Amino acid sequence: MSTPTPRGFSFAGVPCGLKKTGDPDLALIASDRPCSAAAVFTRNRFPAAPVLYDQALMAENPAGLRAVAVNAGVANACTGEPGMADSAAMALAAEQRLRLPARSCAVMSTGVIGPRLPMEKIEAGIQAAAAALTEDGWEKAARAIMTTDTRPKTAFRRAGGCALFGMAKGAGMIHPNMATMLSMVVTDAAIDPAALGGMLPVAVDASFNCISVDGDTSTNDTVLILANGAAGAVDPAAFATALTELCSDLAQQIVRDGEGATKFITIRIEGAASDADARLAAKAVANSPLVKTAFYGGDANWGRILAAVGYSGAAVDPARANLSIAAGRGEASLAKLTGEERGASRERPAGGQQRAGDASPLQLVGGGQPLDYSEAEASAIFAGPEILVTVDLGLGVGRATVWTCDLSHEYVNINGHYRT
Amino acid sequence: MSTPTPRGFSFAGVPCGLKKTGDPDLALIASDRPCSAAAVFTRNRFPAAPVLYDQALMAENPAGLRAVAVNAGVANACTGEPGMADSAAMALAAEQRLRLPARSCAVMSTGVIGPRLPMEKIEAGIQAAAAALTEDGWEKAARAIMTTDTRPKTAFRRAGGCALFGMAKGAGMIHPNMATMLSMVVTDAAIDPAALGGMLPVAVDASFNCISVDGDTSTNDTVLILANGAAGAVDPAAFATALTELCSDLAQQIVRDGEGATKFITIRIEGAASDADARLAAKAVANSPLVKTAFYGGDANWGRILAAVGYSGAAVDPARANLSIAAGRGEASLAKLTGEERGASRERPAGGQQRAGDASPLQLVGGGQPLDYSEAEASAIFAGPEILVTVDLGLGVGRATVWTCDLSHEYVNINGHYRT
Repeated sequence: MSTPTPRGFSFAGVPCGLKKTGDPDLALIASDRPCSAAAVFTRNRFPAAPVLYDQALMAENPAGLRAVAVNAGVANACTGEPGMADSAAMALAAEQRLRLPARSCAVMSTGVIGPRLPMEKIEAGIQAAAAALTEDGWEKAARAIMTTDTRPKTAFRRAGGCALFGMAKGAGMIHPNMATMLSMVVTDAAIDPAALGGMLPVAVDASFNCISVDGDTSTNDTVLILANGAAGAVDPAAFATALTELCSDLAQQIVRDGEGATKFITIRIEGAASDADARLAAKAVANSPLVKTAFYGGDANWGRILAAVGYSGAAVDPARANLSIAAGRGEASLAKLTGEERGASRERPAGGQQRAGDASPLQLVGGGQPLDYSEAEASAIFAGPEILVTVDLGLGVGRATVWTCDLSHEYVNINGHYRT
Repeated sequence: MSTPTPRGFSFAGVPCGLKKTGDPDLALIASDRPCSAAAVFTRNRFPAAPVLYDQALMAENPAGLRAVAVNAGVANACTGEPGMADSAAMALAAEQRLRLPARSCAVMSTGVIGPRLPMEKIEAGIQAAAAALTEDGWEKAARAIMTTDTRPKTAFRRAGGCALFGMAKGAGMIHPNMATMLSMVVTDAAIDPAALGGMLPVAVDASFNCISVDGDTSTNDTVLILANGAAGAVDPAAFATALTELCSDLAQQIVRDGEGATKFITIRIEGAASDADARLAAKAVANSPLVKTAFYGGDANWGRILAAVGYSGAAVDPARANLSIAAGRGEASLAKLTGEERGASRERPAGGQQRAGDASPLQLVGGGQPLDYSEAEASAIFAGPEILVTVDLGLGVGRATVWTCDLSHEYVNINGHYRT
């Protein structure tokens, strides 16, 4: 079976006993030749052992990576020096099984903080995964990195003659990065590490960071890209665009599969004094539990949205503020980003909701005061599965878009008993 | 019936039809002589009309206040110039009914953002409340300002020959100040406005701000103090201490009655590089939905606590971090603050929990790594109604204490359908 995965990469996902369910919990990705690599890591002050391991590895061998091994179930965080030794042993096991040079395999872990990695299981899993590597194994690998995710998250893009493939695992949805977000992207484009290292943070900022609060990162968050050059050179601008689209696709899949999420909500701030202000305001709204529970309840409580803008730190003149809502995701560019319309993604956007095209917006607030809108119309929009909220601050040209989901009973269920 | 309320003040709480339940929703407090006044207001950029009204009033007449009128049900926020006129009319109605000088009555509102105040009901309520004013009306007044609160919050203290009485209404408990927090404090001490204005922010910072995120304030948050001097002069230091204790008492009552709260949690950070760092870390933990849902589930998930410290912005050296938990509130001074042991408060601390004294702490993490503690012991502590979490960062002498509650299904119920 032919796949659109980048040339020279193979994938595996196997169970090694870390998940009580017996589901796959160890993923392996390997390249048949050395890769340029770049990564974006958590800024949490308690970085997990695999984060520290990969940071050193990237500094040492950014043009010579060959593989990445990932486990779910145990985060190997808050494990001190023994945890560092475990990450090194995990990488070494993969390098030996795959007959790779030393210091050519990156590692990632996600799961419960505190416990040590059970190294016998990890090493047995790496052995099994190494034997199972195939070009077609990408979906199994994507399943193996899941924790509270209900479905795997994968995306494909092309840039000229080159292919990009990415997978991700998600996170709790209030401060998304508090639960671990991992993503691995592979491409057969030929790009040097410095260029990759310039593009990746831009792509992450426009995607994964649009579903999170800056600095609100877990102990393990990592986005890693490997470029093996098997398809030759690529136009850097086209590649950067494809990479950003791919990351946005994955980021939106994470939102759709947020813990307990029942709605996909797009918060768009326009007319802010600056883009930075717009992002502050959008994130304050997206992270407000009061706003998110109102969305869950289908309650058109726009007062909570303005209140969140008001404490965000963004400049506000109440008399100039406007707020409107609409069904849908709001931006044609978003539809493009998900790849839905052009079949570039083999993963249907999650949720299975029929999208009838974005409806015209209903303005609720003008000049800081409620308008005489139809409550029935507003309630109908809030009751839908996709809601676009636009706040125009009327001050400047700053704008930002953030994606989020609602806060449901199921969120409390999941997080009240995650370890049990 | 004799009361310990400060001399010269009278209180009333009456229904005027703002709450669908028919419960009291309009409170009036009046002094028989002019009062010194000070207030702390929300920093939200969408301040409600009563906040703007009182700010101007305080600047104009800080030594001549005679009354405060408060309604629950409608916040008079995001109502523009018409809302400003409504607040002015509400104050004027009270001044006329009580035959007070112009510009001597403050106003507060809490409830849904957006709708105009129904002025006919407000004015009828003020008329009824003015007729009902008594020294004993304080509990009725405290009931009239409730919104999602399940019980009134009141506290009493003495400083020398002077009495202090305070009442408060609470707020959602994740970012507490996002839902409106109102508090009124009255005293018969003689203190000039400048001195009051110096003491109140200190008291608020050590109490109401210890259950909230700086700047995370609603459109209406207000703490107001009136001092009528009927009991004569007071030692300023003794008064400031009594005021801080009174505010801490009320703040803890708010936490105990947090929306859907089932547990009272004290987060104590020690050994931080600075007090500011300690507060950052304590608030990050207290506001983390992942931490709060784990508390709700009785899950000893200390990894989430350290992760929150790690993204708080506070300086951290993982190898020096220690974490312990204990049953109870943790500090002898807290017991003192609630007034429970000395009968100074007529309001029993909410919740009705028997407190068996703070148990000895169980250390879970030492040097950034989990210790070999008993899971059963840890679970027993997390299952209790009062939990003290202490994180010692091992870096300096900075410390802070923040009080919070858990995040439950009931929180989602309340906030998913607040308006309906």
